[in-house]
Amino acid sequence: MGDTMSADPLWMHFTRLSAYEGPGAAEVPVIVRGDGPYVWDQHGKRYLDGLSGLFVVQAGHGRTELAEVAAKQAAELAYFPLWSYAHPAARELAARLADLAPGEGNRVFFTTGGSEAVESAWKLARDFFRRTGKPLKTKAITRAVAYHGTTMGALALTGVPGIKQQFEPLVPGSIRVPNTNYYRRPDESQSTEQFGRWAADRIAEAIEFEGPDTVACVFLEPVQNAGGCFPPPPGYFERVREICDAYDVLLVSDEVICAFGRLGDWFGASRFGYRPDIITCAKGITSGYVPLGAMIASARLVEPFREPGASFAHGVSFGGHPVACAVALANMDLFEREDLNGHVRSATGVLRAYLDRLRDLPIVGDVRGDGFFFGIELVKDKATKETFDDAESDRLLRGFLSPALFEAGLYCRADDRGDPVVQLAPPLICDESHFAEMEQILRTALTQAWARV
Amino acid sequence: MGDTMSADPLWMHFTRLSAYEGPGAAEVPVIVRGDGPYVWDQHGKRYLDGLSGLFVVQAGHGRTELAEVAAKQAAELAYFPLWSYAHPAARELAARLADLAPGEGNRVFFTTGGSEAVESAWKLARDFFRRTGKPLKTKAITRAVAYHGTTMGALALTGVPGIKQQFEPLVPGSIRVPNTNYYRRPDESQSTEQFGRWAADRIAEAIEFEGPDTVACVFLEPVQNAGGCFPPPPGYFERVREICDAYDVLLVSDEVICAFGRLGDWFGASRFGYRPDIITCAKGITSGYVPLGAMIASARLVEPFREPGASFAHGVSFGGHPVACAVALANMDLFEREDLNGHVRSATGVLRAYLDRLRDLPIVGDVRGDGFFFGIELVKDKATKETFDDAESDRLLRGFLSPALFEAGLYCRADDRGDPVVQLAPPLICDESHFAEMEQILRTALTQAWARV
Repeated sequence: MGDTMSADPLWMHFTRLSAYEGPGAAEVPVIVRGDGPYVWDQHGKRYLDGLSGLFVVQAGHGRTELAEVAAKQAAELAYFPLWSYAHPAARELAARLADLAPGEGNRVFFTTGGSEAVESAWKLARDFFRRTGKPLKTKAITRAVAYHGTTMGALALTGVPGIKQQFEPLVPGSIRVPNTNYYRRPDESQSTEQFGRWAADRIAEAIEFEGPDTVACVFLEPVQNAGGCFPPPPGYFERVREICDAYDVLLVSDEVICAFGRLGDWFGASRFGYRPDIITCAKGITSGYVPLGAMIASARLVEPFREPGASFAHGVSFGGHPVACAVALANMDLFEREDLNGHVRSATGVLRAYLDRLRDLPIVGDVRGDGFFFGIELVKDKATKETFDDAESDRLLRGFLSPALFEAGLYCRADDRGDPVVQLAPPLICDESHFAEMEQILRTALTQAWARV
Repeated sequence: MGDTMSADPLWMHFTRLSAYEGPGAAEVPVIVRGDGPYVWDQHGKRYLDGLSGLFVVQAGHGRTELAEVAAKQAAELAYFPLWSYAHPAARELAARLADLAPGEGNRVFFTTGGSEAVESAWKLARDFFRRTGKPLKTKAITRAVAYHGTTMGALALTGVPGIKQQFEPLVPGSIRVPNTNYYRRPDESQSTEQFGRWAADRIAEAIEFEGPDTVACVFLEPVQNAGGCFPPPPGYFERVREICDAYDVLLVSDEVICAFGRLGDWFGASRFGYRPDIITCAKGITSGYVPLGAMIASARLVEPFREPGASFAHGVSFGGHPVACAVALANMDLFEREDLNGHVRSATGVLRAYLDRLRDLPIVGDVRGDGFFFGIELVKDKATKETFDDAESDRLLRGFLSPALFEAGLYCRADDRGDPVVQLAPPLICDESHFAEMEQILRTALTQAWARV
């Protein structure tokens, strides 16, 4: 297993190597086991999984029924590509997803994960417009601070400069608009409706700035993750849909986090009642038991590819893996049997109420979210909403709060890409007892953190 | 399951929808079961898997031991991210891969598949040079017709215009050099050594054309897949290594296909005795039982990321998935127990001999490859090496040969991205009986195809 003084051959993701190497290094936290909403580390210490792994483990850990389905499919047909061949699990899953997603005649293109689903959507948008007489439509609009993945196309769409600038130049034609952080709206006098209208209209403005003939699509999460859980203001998606229709720009609902019960519905678009042209999803589709992603395209987008000889020249070897598709089907059965979507809808108010209690703490500026997906924005000054600078974030969040929460038995993130936000997205099986546990741990750690400001 | 007349909600990869929809449509081949080197379709018909799924199923189908390991890990800890956390399977696998790959002090960054591994390598190359005082080094050199993946970074590196031009603009700074198709060398008088030197020197020329200060890396497969199995001429990689050293350009060995026994060794670089700066791999790492990919970086590249506070700001949720890593470890155990690498080394000559027999057919222009990885290039005229035009390829290969081979019980590809090449990469458990079966089916189908030229 290596020791903490010498280099571990495992290069962890988004991780400062210096934190775990050399004199004074921390021990790498090694998670060895999971059961329900809890995981255990190498020392037998238990943690409440406040983030479902990474917005992934919807059904909770240790679901032997999903493990058994994986084994059965792996023994029967572990792998076959979808390159002009099919296998039963992929067909069945595609039919089920196409049926559940908004609209009729949807078509499902499988990938291995979220980045690939997002890449597939942008590729489809460009190819679609070229086949339908609008070849200049190649650009994509996304929101500031939004995270859409790390492959170079998805990364170009991502609005977090700190994780993309060192890798540029990326795919050209990605444009940023404001996100829906109402807490930090530029005009304090705006109602949520006014703010939503303003934010949506900035998409129209960006389309005009670029030239409508050059814009293919806009990528929006139902609730934006990075930055800390920005739900859509009332009317936002309605107005975005109008804008997209007016300019013939495709609306891509990036639901890598928000689908599969995270917001209490199969899809985030259904939760908020809008009609996307494309849905991208991954993570919770299998509750994370096997990697899978999907791009769900509406009927209109498929049409030009039905012409004789036409094909969407795209694919990935592991996309729609038989074991992953079989597990996804079993996961959806489990969702239905245990009514996880209904549970999230009925319990979200309780979760919100527990987190709202933390607003009495001076460090808590905002609590926001939807379903089982919340963010707590931390501030230096509640009245002025003054935030922490990079050095303070580093010291307080990365240096103190994240380890303190983990030490106290709660796994979540308090330093995600530098935002002063604690994010919470527990498995969808959690109930009030777990919400209370989270609140207690958070209260203690946030109080201690404030003492260090 | 849907019928062939109406649209199937499953959007297959790289597939002409018109082939399977509407009047006169073919039935989608649905693969339902696998055992050893064989798979079965929905009608119970058996096929020899001449392509290991897609260069993936090294250990063969139906390996219950890998299925059981998957189930055990999924029940214990199905998912946890590698974002500043670790889990035992990823650590153990990283240590094992780092040890087996050429050089000391390697570090392993896990992904979900090949495209992501390639993206990771290009991102690392750019970030590395920026951290070491050469910020202009961002470009990458790849070979004509080479396939490196389909996400927009990997696709930019891919040298197949037909699958990229409709998605452009992609990531800037990707430059093409000639591949090592000796059969179609520009100067017939060249020996293999002379041709290899010429092809390698074209990399130096490209670096000079672009400006050495702007070139970060060159991506090369040990044996190039697309185009139809181009092995390196003698001295090629030795000369490439010299060039890379001279210009401080990183050599990325893209081994998504060539690692894990495909060439009779753990890594293709070991097979040909060269030292890459980065290895990318995927596919066979788990024999395809669960999606996994990896980028293996040499010690030098890790150094700048060990500085205090530094991090490689990259990751994917499903990269280094616990179930995938556990299966990869079991797959490597299986490789060792059954000495699959040794079997490939000892049996490659037999496979080659069987395929070489097909050279007596007028349509067979060339047979080439290494290990269990061969391509048969088809020609209209053996003397002139005249190839098939697009329409002929379409009619003869896509229209006749692929279905004829499948009908005769051999799954392989005779129309891969339009190249007039039959590719063969059987599971590494195959023996002479399977080679003989392949040769018989190929002989019949190629003879029939020639009658239709």
